[in-house]
Amino acid sequence: MTRVLIVGGGFAGLNAAKVLGNASGVDVTIIDKRNHHLFQPLLYQVAMAGLSPADIAAPIRSMLAAYKNIRVLLGTVDGVDLQRNVARTDAGDLPFDYVILAAGSTHSYFGHDEWEEFAPGLKTLEQATEIRRRVLVAFEAAERIQDPEEQKRLLTFAVVGGGPTGVELAGAIAEMSRFTLARDFKAVSARSARVILLEAGPRILPMFSEGQAARAVRDLGSLGVTVRVRTAVTGIDSDGVQIGDERLRAGTVLWAAGVKASRLGAAAGLLVDAQGRVIVEPDLSVKDFPRVFVAGDEARFTHQTGAPLPGTAPVAMQAGRHAAHMILDDLAGKSRRPFHFVDKGQMATIGRSRAILEKGSLKLGGFIAWLLWLVIHIYYLTGFKNRLLVVVQWAWSYVTFGRGARLITGEDWRMRRAR
Amino acid sequence: MTRVLIVGGGFAGLNAAKVLGNASGVDVTIIDKRNHHLFQPLLYQVAMAGLSPADIAAPIRSMLAAYKNIRVLLGTVDGVDLQRNVARTDAGDLPFDYVILAAGSTHSYFGHDEWEEFAPGLKTLEQATEIRRRVLVAFEAAERIQDPEEQKRLLTFAVVGGGPTGVELAGAIAEMSRFTLARDFKAVSARSARVILLEAGPRILPMFSEGQAARAVRDLGSLGVTVRVRTAVTGIDSDGVQIGDERLRAGTVLWAAGVKASRLGAAAGLLVDAQGRVIVEPDLSVKDFPRVFVAGDEARFTHQTGAPLPGTAPVAMQAGRHAAHMILDDLAGKSRRPFHFVDKGQMATIGRSRAILEKGSLKLGGFIAWLLWLVIHIYYLTGFKNRLLVVVQWAWSYVTFGRGARLITGEDWRMRRAR
Repeated sequence: MTRVLIVGGGFAGLNAAKVLGNASGVDVTIIDKRNHHLFQPLLYQVAMAGLSPADIAAPIRSMLAAYKNIRVLLGTVDGVDLQRNVARTDAGDLPFDYVILAAGSTHSYFGHDEWEEFAPGLKTLEQATEIRRRVLVAFEAAERIQDPEEQKRLLTFAVVGGGPTGVELAGAIAEMSRFTLARDFKAVSARSARVILLEAGPRILPMFSEGQAARAVRDLGSLGVTVRVRTAVTGIDSDGVQIGDERLRAGTVLWAAGVKASRLGAAAGLLVDAQGRVIVEPDLSVKDFPRVFVAGDEARFTHQTGAPLPGTAPVAMQAGRHAAHMILDDLAGKSRRPFHFVDKGQMATIGRSRAILEKGSLKLGGFIAWLLWLVIHIYYLTGFKNRLLVVVQWAWSYVTFGRGARLITGEDWRMRRAR
Repeated sequence: MTRVLIVGGGFAGLNAAKVLGNASGVDVTIIDKRNHHLFQPLLYQVAMAGLSPADIAAPIRSMLAAYKNIRVLLGTVDGVDLQRNVARTDAGDLPFDYVILAAGSTHSYFGHDEWEEFAPGLKTLEQATEIRRRVLVAFEAAERIQDPEEQKRLLTFAVVGGGPTGVELAGAIAEMSRFTLARDFKAVSARSARVILLEAGPRILPMFSEGQAARAVRDLGSLGVTVRVRTAVTGIDSDGVQIGDERLRAGTVLWAAGVKASRLGAAAGLLVDAQGRVIVEPDLSVKDFPRVFVAGDEARFTHQTGAPLPGTAPVAMQAGRHAAHMILDDLAGKSRRPFHFVDKGQMATIGRSRAILEKGSLKLGGFIAWLLWLVIHIYYLTGFKNRLLVVVQWAWSYVTFGRGARLITGEDWRMRRAR
């Protein structure tokens, strides 16, 4: 039996496992430090109280329960020894013949890890509920006090980073304060909340065309979001954001700027780029290690367009499947093929009823793009039930402007940050 | 304007607020340390991964948004000064003309607070997700190891306390391991999980008739739950439960035994019983303080039957409404009336498809009782959307034996307790 180890149950690892599932002659172990696969494209909706964690996550174990040759382990990989073909984990040593590294990425604060406390990123369910807690607590705290200066600070939300996640977060906060919360709060006007999107580069959404990005800026503006480009953040603390000499007082700061890959590749002695991504060969294997594959956010793949493929769900899904197929091809005596990413286009939502969508020369915006966004995301959401639940919640929210998951929970649900 | 302060947004406080909502001449402030009202009768379903937190909780603020004369505050009450008619809170001093104390109850470990770490109770959403985490992590840990003794310990679940909550938890763990998890785990047999319900008294469910309690014991037995009565727990630690000289090794221990009332009543100098409940007059006011009412779990009301009314949702709802009506009657110049609890019967579920129900001489069990339980709980669940979502999830779970919310989350989602 050929032993395949998959590190990570995200889009890359899960799709690799499904290709290898019930393949003869292959024994698969998939290990993840979390028990669930997460549908990250909708994570911002958990942060914005539109969906519950369980709506966008499912146990890896049950997603792969149908495959007899797959073993699912909850555990942490401390390192991978590529000379001895063994992964060291807190569940013991795991020997392998092939390994697919798909451990993903986390936030990078560009050397300022001290900012994390004041500006959480959005990668895990815990971070999503923490962001939800902070945003809702800011409104509660503003409602309790009289000082108008402090109220203004509490109702100022700064989102750092003008990529799709930053745009979606900023749009959702603005929409939530204008429509949902405005009805609930009486002493403060939730409508007066200020949402500021800060981008260091010359424009937001650089992966989209200029016209589409400009459209997003207009859509954000109509929701009340101020977009500031060429605005590099130089400090973040409990009071707000520092931008060079300028002080932006903000009760809530969210981080949607940089990411860095899992340390697993670098720790294994593999060649990585500045963001920690492993440089991969055209077939997604690693130079000198043909039985080691890297897929998803952890890989730097430049053979198709010269530029690295982005860290998105479609790239990870296709790369995971390709790596798995290469293993099956090896076993069948076929030669390796280069990975070719089929770009199905990209999209971003801006609040309710608006989105931008781009695929080659096709460019859509407004309500039509939003409807397409809806259909595609519902289609890709895993599992029948989640899909139905999400549809029910979205339909309800759309009609009523309500958001069902406005809960302040967590160990530190008290108003810690409400000064 | 008459200022009414309501402390607590549970069943008593919320229902009192609704009676006072939009009443002329009354200004209402309701304060709670949480932003949400919780439908506690279904909390065990969150702990058992059947429902998400947001399905059974809603913001107090939005539930009362329609009432112009109600102010909702997120805050902690440190004490109530009944001489000066002021509540001291972390949101400042709140003066009042009338106050309704409805701060509820929490778990009591009978002087053994050190047990709490090893045996969480089930009163808050955080506790429910912590219990869910512990139960799911126990299965994951058992799957990772080889030692059969330790596997047996990890797959032993002890529930302390044979009231409705203990019965529902024990039944749900047994059902989850037998049906849902058995399909997911391969190395261990989730079906072999042992669930033991420990009750110190002579029988479980003392509030039900003997026949109905015996029926519950049989139903639990058919799910694989061992019921042990006259079994007083004398110690709980990380390894399991001590019962006199006997050691019961258990990976997970859950606490459903004693409760104690909020300290607010005793701290205000009011007469309380051994569980901290305030002794109330027939009209739910406090002796010598006619403008102070106590309702819900915080009150000890014995005027109807001699015995104190139980700490259930129906009692709290009716008592909250009565206290509010007494305030309105005062303002209308009417005289006070004694509280009369209308008992609509009691019920408990035992896994899927079974329940017991009792109202006077009417005693039902099995599938019919379970269907009634379902209808009644869906009816009382607050808000259209939650209701629909819960129905969809229950229908899905019933047909597929699945449980949609099997997520291990929380700050300490790592396998802290997996030794």
